[in-house]
Amino acid sequence: MPSPPPPPVAAARDGDVRAVARLISLVEDESASLRQVMAALAPHTGHAHVVGITGSPGVGKSTSTSALLRELRALGRRVGVLAVDPSSPFSGGALLGDRVRMGDHTTDPGVYIRSMASRGHLGGLAWTTPQAIRVLDAAGYDVILVETVGVGQSEVEIAGLADTTMVLLAPGLGDGIQAAKAGILEIGDLYVVNKADRDGAGRVSRDLRSMLALAGRRQGGWEQPVLQTVAQTGQGVPEVVAALDQHLAWLRETDTLTKRRSARARAEIEAIAVAALRARWGDVGGHAELESLADGVAAGTTDPYAAADRLLEHG
Amino acid sequence: MPSPPPPPVAAARDGDVRAVARLISLVEDESASLRQVMAALAPHTGHAHVVGITGSPGVGKSTSTSALLRELRALGRRVGVLAVDPSSPFSGGALLGDRVRMGDHTTDPGVYIRSMASRGHLGGLAWTTPQAIRVLDAAGYDVILVETVGVGQSEVEIAGLADTTMVLLAPGLGDGIQAAKAGILEIGDLYVVNKADRDGAGRVSRDLRSMLALAGRRQGGWEQPVLQTVAQTGQGVPEVVAALDQHLAWLRETDTLTKRRSARARAEIEAIAVAALRARWGDVGGHAELESLADGVAAGTTDPYAAADRLLEHG
Repeated sequence: MPSPPPPPVAAARDGDVRAVARLISLVEDESASLRQVMAALAPHTGHAHVVGITGSPGVGKSTSTSALLRELRALGRRVGVLAVDPSSPFSGGALLGDRVRMGDHTTDPGVYIRSMASRGHLGGLAWTTPQAIRVLDAAGYDVILVETVGVGQSEVEIAGLADTTMVLLAPGLGDGIQAAKAGILEIGDLYVVNKADRDGAGRVSRDLRSMLALAGRRQGGWEQPVLQTVAQTGQGVPEVVAALDQHLAWLRETDTLTKRRSARARAEIEAIAVAALRARWGDVGGHAELESLADGVAAGTTDPYAAADRLLEHG
Repeated sequence: MPSPPPPPVAAARDGDVRAVARLISLVEDESASLRQVMAALAPHTGHAHVVGITGSPGVGKSTSTSALLRELRALGRRVGVLAVDPSSPFSGGALLGDRVRMGDHTTDPGVYIRSMASRGHLGGLAWTTPQAIRVLDAAGYDVILVETVGVGQSEVEIAGLADTTMVLLAPGLGDGIQAAKAGILEIGDLYVVNKADRDGAGRVSRDLRSMLALAGRRQGGWEQPVLQTVAQTGQGVPEVVAALDQHLAWLRETDTLTKRRSARARAEIEAIAVAALRARWGDVGGHAELESLADGVAAGTTDPYAAADRLLEHG
């Protein structure tokens, strides 16, 4: 078998969209060559503004992503989009729709759109998403929009990955503000009430502002704006882009950007280290030990803590 | 401060529901005393039949869980229910409804119902759910129903935790069979088409049977049954209990039960070992190293793989 071609790092940096696609496939496939690829990309990272976009199903995440993409392109910025799919047995259909809606950008070389699937076993999206961001960053995209499909722990993780997290809401989803109580106040750098042409949008905005004020959630001087859009028509979208730019400027001024990116790198390093350990535990040598420990726990002759201690001693 | 009282292991084993609740709280709080608790529980585990119940939102998981609970109680079995909430900012409301619906069992000492939240940071539900199962198992519940809220990677993990995984479907959810294609054929030991009094239930069942036949998904001799229920009225529920019992008998006869439980223990040991390592990396000593590695990755002077290597060398 011929040795595989060298990873297309240089081509990706030159703006070759196919080379970018191949690199992200290496990430998704957990390729052995990732190690060299990431080493080659490292010096070129740190320039992109990573924006997480999240919200409940039905708030219009894909339409908003698409509208933002259009606005950013009109300003001449190169944009990467990662649509994060938690690879659910039950959510397979949604992203096809997204891709179709984003189809009008497919011939624009300044745009790269990718649906991320967590096929692998090492650590799922916690592992692949930051590396895909790294690829797009090194490839020179100015803004990377990371859209999460919606429900679950995944978007909380995404909030940790982004420089700026944008939380979408919409009127008429019943428990919009209930949901807000449950946790979105902790993750948003800006809030966008989409479908602002519908009844109740003003109320959602007012309620959210009151709650943010009550919670005193100013993050070291950044007061989270609450904006309104009609993503379908583009109304309010330029204001969202302006707010994203303001947040990035604030992140830079206060050195929060460095702190957030270090935290992101820390999580990434940990995920890779843990994956390496799991692989080691699953290796021929360690395998027998872990298997026999597991048999002992299943049989009730030992407990999982004592077993973990022994794994760490010998692993 | 007085030292905390000894963990109520003996009381839980004697059927004291409050003691069970306190033990599960220790799990959720990632208490330091868990280590001793689990060691004390270990010899008493391995008797319960752990049944995972999963399916898309809207198929009637809670109603089905409640109906199963009633049927199992009528047969004199002690039943524990763990409702797994992925602690989503956007799904906070659902479980309250479940709890209310299950309220008619709250005075029955043969029933224990708990909503699990992944408050902690060690490994979320991957870490807490198996330990909560272990508590209920040792406390002598005959059947433990683990209901997952629905979408995402979590229920795939739950499939790995259960002795028997029951996948619920319902007519009229549009993409029922599409979803099936996406992955549920891989996880179900039995399939239940709920809301069988509605149009289309027969078709969902037939389509599912065809797909199971085409996929040749007999698991070492077990042909997954496709049943129909109307959970609201209890119709078909005795047949589901019979199928669950048959599956458990098959698991025992073929020694698959031991294999599944070993695999479950293996995942649990790994999760605890990884949590211990993460804690070690976050400790005063290791902390500085991980921080400076992360700063290097964020600055582009090193890449995450090289950083992970160094963490593992020195950690």
